[in-house]
Amino acid sequence: MTNIILSGGSGTRLWPISRTLFPKQYNKLFQGRSLFQKTYERNRNHCDKSIIITNQEQYFMALDQLDEIGARAEFLLEPVGRNTAPAIALAALMVDPEEILLVTPSDHLVNDETAYGAVLTVAKKLAGQGYLVTFGITPEYPETGYGYIEADGNDVRSFKEKPDRQTAQRYIDQGNYYWNSGIFCFSAKSFLEELQRYAPEIYQQSKTAFEKAKRDQAVRIDLDDMLAIPEDSIDYAVMEKSTKVKVIPSTIGWSDMGSFESLYEVLPKDTSGNTTESNTLHLDSRDNLIIGHERMIATVDVEDLMIVDTADALLIAKKGSGQKVKQIVARLKEEKNDLHNIHMTAHRPWGTYTILEESA
Amino acid sequence: MTNIILSGGSGTRLWPISRTLFPKQYNKLFQGRSLFQKTYERNRNHCDKSIIITNQEQYFMALDQLDEIGARAEFLLEPVGRNTAPAIALAALMVDPEEILLVTPSDHLVNDETAYGAVLTVAKKLAGQGYLVTFGITPEYPETGYGYIEADGNDVRSFKEKPDRQTAQRYIDQGNYYWNSGIFCFSAKSFLEELQRYAPEIYQQSKTAFEKAKRDQAVRIDLDDMLAIPEDSIDYAVMEKSTKVKVIPSTIGWSDMGSFESLYEVLPKDTSGNTTESNTLHLDSRDNLIIGHERMIATVDVEDLMIVDTADALLIAKKGSGQKVKQIVARLKEEKNDLHNIHMTAHRPWGTYTILEESA
Repeated sequence: MTNIILSGGSGTRLWPISRTLFPKQYNKLFQGRSLFQKTYERNRNHCDKSIIITNQEQYFMALDQLDEIGARAEFLLEPVGRNTAPAIALAALMVDPEEILLVTPSDHLVNDETAYGAVLTVAKKLAGQGYLVTFGITPEYPETGYGYIEADGNDVRSFKEKPDRQTAQRYIDQGNYYWNSGIFCFSAKSFLEELQRYAPEIYQQSKTAFEKAKRDQAVRIDLDDMLAIPEDSIDYAVMEKSTKVKVIPSTIGWSDMGSFESLYEVLPKDTSGNTTESNTLHLDSRDNLIIGHERMIATVDVEDLMIVDTADALLIAKKGSGQKVKQIVARLKEEKNDLHNIHMTAHRPWGTYTILEESA
Repeated sequence: MTNIILSGGSGTRLWPISRTLFPKQYNKLFQGRSLFQKTYERNRNHCDKSIIITNQEQYFMALDQLDEIGARAEFLLEPVGRNTAPAIALAALMVDPEEILLVTPSDHLVNDETAYGAVLTVAKKLAGQGYLVTFGITPEYPETGYGYIEADGNDVRSFKEKPDRQTAQRYIDQGNYYWNSGIFCFSAKSFLEELQRYAPEIYQQSKTAFEKAKRDQAVRIDLDDMLAIPEDSIDYAVMEKSTKVKVIPSTIGWSDMGSFESLYEVLPKDTSGNTTESNTLHLDSRDNLIIGHERMIATVDVEDLMIVDTADALLIAKKGSGQKVKQIVARLKEEKNDLHNIHMTAHRPWGTYTILEESA
């Protein structure tokens, strides 16, 4: 089995920790390990080979992080992102048609690796039988930020767009709805066949682009060839149309790190009241989510804030408003402000950050 | 007339802008000018000479700031502060007994210099007649953080401690109560006579300390001699007891810069809604007081915060809780954390800060 790691994203909802050229998956948030490194290691336990799909700008960063953990991978470099269907098609063309592919984002967290391993075993078996397998995460609460999969055992009844609160609650109550995780398992051949059937233009242009790619340290797709591939997600292009799709209900401690609230949820914390922990000092403050860098952070009479401090940018947001952070990045881009892009004064270019305290 | 500038304070309520070794009066908060420099210039228009009373640690900082504005002064260096009565006694001993002294803190702001000049003319005249003159600021609102002076024309009926809210309101309503500004005017002789009468131990020990002082670039008091002087304020030691005290009601645009709220009040601001001004970006945020340094500051869904960002420390406080900031400094001292003391990573050692925005 080959692990395809999708690693081109920029994680705008974790700005200012995440920047376009230094996305969240490369931040060493977990005892010196990044989500990218953890993703590699988690899946390498079950795969013989890894293919990283990313862009040229992030190539050396990814390479360095692999070096750090003594890892190797093949690279597929996209000059521009065309969403997941083309990316996975190009990767599928890199391997033997019979090879089973385990497609994973690089910026998710899986806390229960034993359960994950068990799920993979089932997935691999179904993939070997020609099915396109998607992982449905058992929902823990009525999240409105994810798509859902309506299941009937391992069969998919339907894919659901991000629901409103009420609909999400109904999904939870019904018990056969799962979060669409973006993790997939299938043979290269099965995927390419279904892609050819339901999105022939993506298939054909991907094939052309792949054949014309440069091959040196990495498989490098040409810009014009990449732009010729229609942009689409694997869900829209294939999964929602194919009759060969299976879903595996998965309870694996999954988190997509899609906001500071979810990041905070999974990070180790010091919890205390108004005492000085590490580099903070709190006076009559509580329930604040603080992700610090090097600076002393003092609070007085404040509560329910997210405070995220980096060398060159500081975010202060109301807890629960994390989904709006991407609008900050959009605004910075609009204004051609480089802070969306890079750490301008990064003292620690590969970013180590620590949760300082949730004053309780 | 000689201006005595009291400049040894450390401004703990403006931490992290103000540090023990870099107090607020040296911060260049006003178009490149510090409160110390502004104090010097404001009073030098009315005085022939200036005497700076400060400590050894701040000597060169004060000297540099005088150099910058082409100014000169004599220095009296205290090895340890013993409050205002000893400081002023020592300064009074430095000049001719008939000299009129204008005693001013170094960290206050006076916005109406014309009115201030008029008040000084009256003060100087009364001082020449042997009176000890204190400046009573016409109160603008029922502040509970200041002492009040109950006046009857230029006569003082009584000094009042910091009142509670209700009492302060009563003072305002009665119309003959003034904020005790800490600005004084008297002849050296008159002050020393009254000090000798009402606080003879302070007078005597100050005289001894002054006589034994080293005299080189500055008059430098010996530590043991300084410690032998009882610690007391000029108000307690002299003004509240002497029968020669006069008060001059003053409407001069005075501010004591005693908290971020009062500092913010007098600083130039950009006011706007959710737009990017200078180095901030606000999303659905309002009524925040932001004093920035170099870093980008983004806010999402927050209101009524004070955000004060410096190179090595960040303060996030509820607006109106500014008086508690000194507790942060006390805590840092307790914990022997040097951040109360110095800017550990100061990029700009003499500190220029800008008001970024009050999102309205």
